[in-house]
Amino acid sequence: MVTTKRYHLAERPDGVPDDDTFDLREVELGEPGPGEVLLDIQYLSVDPYMRGRMRAGESYAEPWEVGQPLEGGAVAEVVEEYGTQFEPGDTVVGNMVWAEQHVANAAELQSVSVGDLPASTALGVLGMPGRTAYFGTREVLEPRAGDTVVVSAAAGAVGSVVGQLAKKQGATVIGFAGSDEKCKIVEAEFGFDACLNYKATDDYVEALSEAAPAGVDGYFDNVGGPITDAVFTQLNVDAHVAVCGQIALYNEEEVPTGPRKLGKLIETRARVQGLLVGDYATRFEKATSDLAEWVGTGELAYCETVTEGLENAPDAFVGLFEGENIGKQVVKVE
Amino acid sequence: MVTTKRYHLAERPDGVPDDDTFDLREVELGEPGPGEVLLDIQYLSVDPYMRGRMRAGESYAEPWEVGQPLEGGAVAEVVEEYGTQFEPGDTVVGNMVWAEQHVANAAELQSVSVGDLPASTALGVLGMPGRTAYFGTREVLEPRAGDTVVVSAAAGAVGSVVGQLAKKQGATVIGFAGSDEKCKIVEAEFGFDACLNYKATDDYVEALSEAAPAGVDGYFDNVGGPITDAVFTQLNVDAHVAVCGQIALYNEEEVPTGPRKLGKLIETRARVQGLLVGDYATRFEKATSDLAEWVGTGELAYCETVTEGLENAPDAFVGLFEGENIGKQVVKVE
Repeated sequence: MVTTKRYHLAERPDGVPDDDTFDLREVELGEPGPGEVLLDIQYLSVDPYMRGRMRAGESYAEPWEVGQPLEGGAVAEVVEEYGTQFEPGDTVVGNMVWAEQHVANAAELQSVSVGDLPASTALGVLGMPGRTAYFGTREVLEPRAGDTVVVSAAAGAVGSVVGQLAKKQGATVIGFAGSDEKCKIVEAEFGFDACLNYKATDDYVEALSEAAPAGVDGYFDNVGGPITDAVFTQLNVDAHVAVCGQIALYNEEEVPTGPRKLGKLIETRARVQGLLVGDYATRFEKATSDLAEWVGTGELAYCETVTEGLENAPDAFVGLFEGENIGKQVVKVE
Repeated sequence: MVTTKRYHLAERPDGVPDDDTFDLREVELGEPGPGEVLLDIQYLSVDPYMRGRMRAGESYAEPWEVGQPLEGGAVAEVVEEYGTQFEPGDTVVGNMVWAEQHVANAAELQSVSVGDLPASTALGVLGMPGRTAYFGTREVLEPRAGDTVVVSAAAGAVGSVVGQLAKKQGATVIGFAGSDEKCKIVEAEFGFDACLNYKATDDYVEALSEAAPAGVDGYFDNVGGPITDAVFTQLNVDAHVAVCGQIALYNEEEVPTGPRKLGKLIETRARVQGLLVGDYATRFEKATSDLAEWVGTGELAYCETVTEGLENAPDAFVGLFEGENIGKQVVKVE
């Protein structure tokens, strides 16, 4: 019998999640049954979309039930297995729980193959966020050489990759990020042409029209809210907008309101489309392989923020909404 | 020398245009020069987009200048010509002014070819609104057999055609219109499966979820505002939204606000795209020919509201925003 610490949803948060939201329990796990593995979790992913799962209402991910364990992408080492494709010592990635140890169905796990890179990259640049950027850029944003592309949350796990992929296509790329430090990294490490610190900017429209004087041909939106309002005012004819996240709104309890923007779409014939990476599941292998190659050649830079200790997972999660992470936020469990 | 009555923009309206907006002048026209024609205007088109031209600010159509004649699509008879492709007595269509007579560049006019139909159809079902519906449906809405499609301003010149074209593709079509009389026509004449009288409906979301229990796969938006908000709540995965007009907002002087809806696009991966018929100019001939064929075979019904007399053009125009027209609103000039 194995005992593990595990986070459960204590109650649905009202606004920003706090201590009352998370319940750290000590629970006993059964032995793995046929087709199952016992896992030592190494890295846990915390992601903005999880805020939607804390809500009872409809979201694009199924709501978590109060009292149930919090789930999330994770990287783990196989400790025991019962008739599976894995050996003890294998490193695997998949959907797990916020815990130190976990018993999982082996069919729902994949071997981690990140070459010389840290295993945590399977949760970031070579994982869900990297693939979101890959397909979101390729299939929805579709940047063309000479385009001006704007990326919100440009220092984040998805945005940082989107900007680099758009640069690769020959676009001029402008980011929005939440500190001078982040903007410096966005420009110096991720190679964006410019980055606007929205926390130090009074007038986003003015700042944007200076940074992107020829207007905006592509916008990859991770945040929603006033930054997105400003970008919409600058859209060019035939612009493409990829809607990936709306993190600025996730902790709102009332329906957020803002200026109506559909008229701008008539003027520009712009296309606005939402994206979920799961739609591209049949092509994940190719995406991961391309991303790994570009990281290997140095064409694609990435960044991780690692928080130590399972007990700090709630803080790492809440920190996403404060913009505390640079690049992919993971929790190193042990 | 010919004298004509002609409407000029007296001042930019604040909110709904009124008597102070329009200035009816008596003006003298010069003789047509080389390449020009003198026209007797028969039918004048008034269209919602013209409200945008009364504004100084940016719109998708160039602003009218204060003091200048109001322009618009019109059908006219050629009275005199000076070295053009037309003969006196020819009926032509093109961009003219709100007047009884007009001197125009013949190169910017087309012969009206509407077969046995009234010449006014060159401003409606066989003109700009018909072609807007044709390309908007074909290129942006893209209804598929089995889809549920919603059309706002369903009794209007564009909406009535969109619904019929979507039905032709095998979609179930629900309209929104502004009176029981209109809804009756939308169902009985235009063959929509259902029509909701939004002026007699308290809760659009509830009414829509009853009329379209399987959700909405396509939405052709002519109005914006609360009807559009309601339709967005019902969008299905992969829905297509064609944004053609936002008439509910055109008289707003403040930037209109409403619930933020981009998050719904993530959940559904819906695509929202604006449209302007001018983008399809190279294919107008085919569109008009298709539309004429379908009207001829009885597959495509149309309706016109004819207001008599140039002096009533302002009322006919303002009536568009009150929903006073059924089908295409034209002004019979003489």
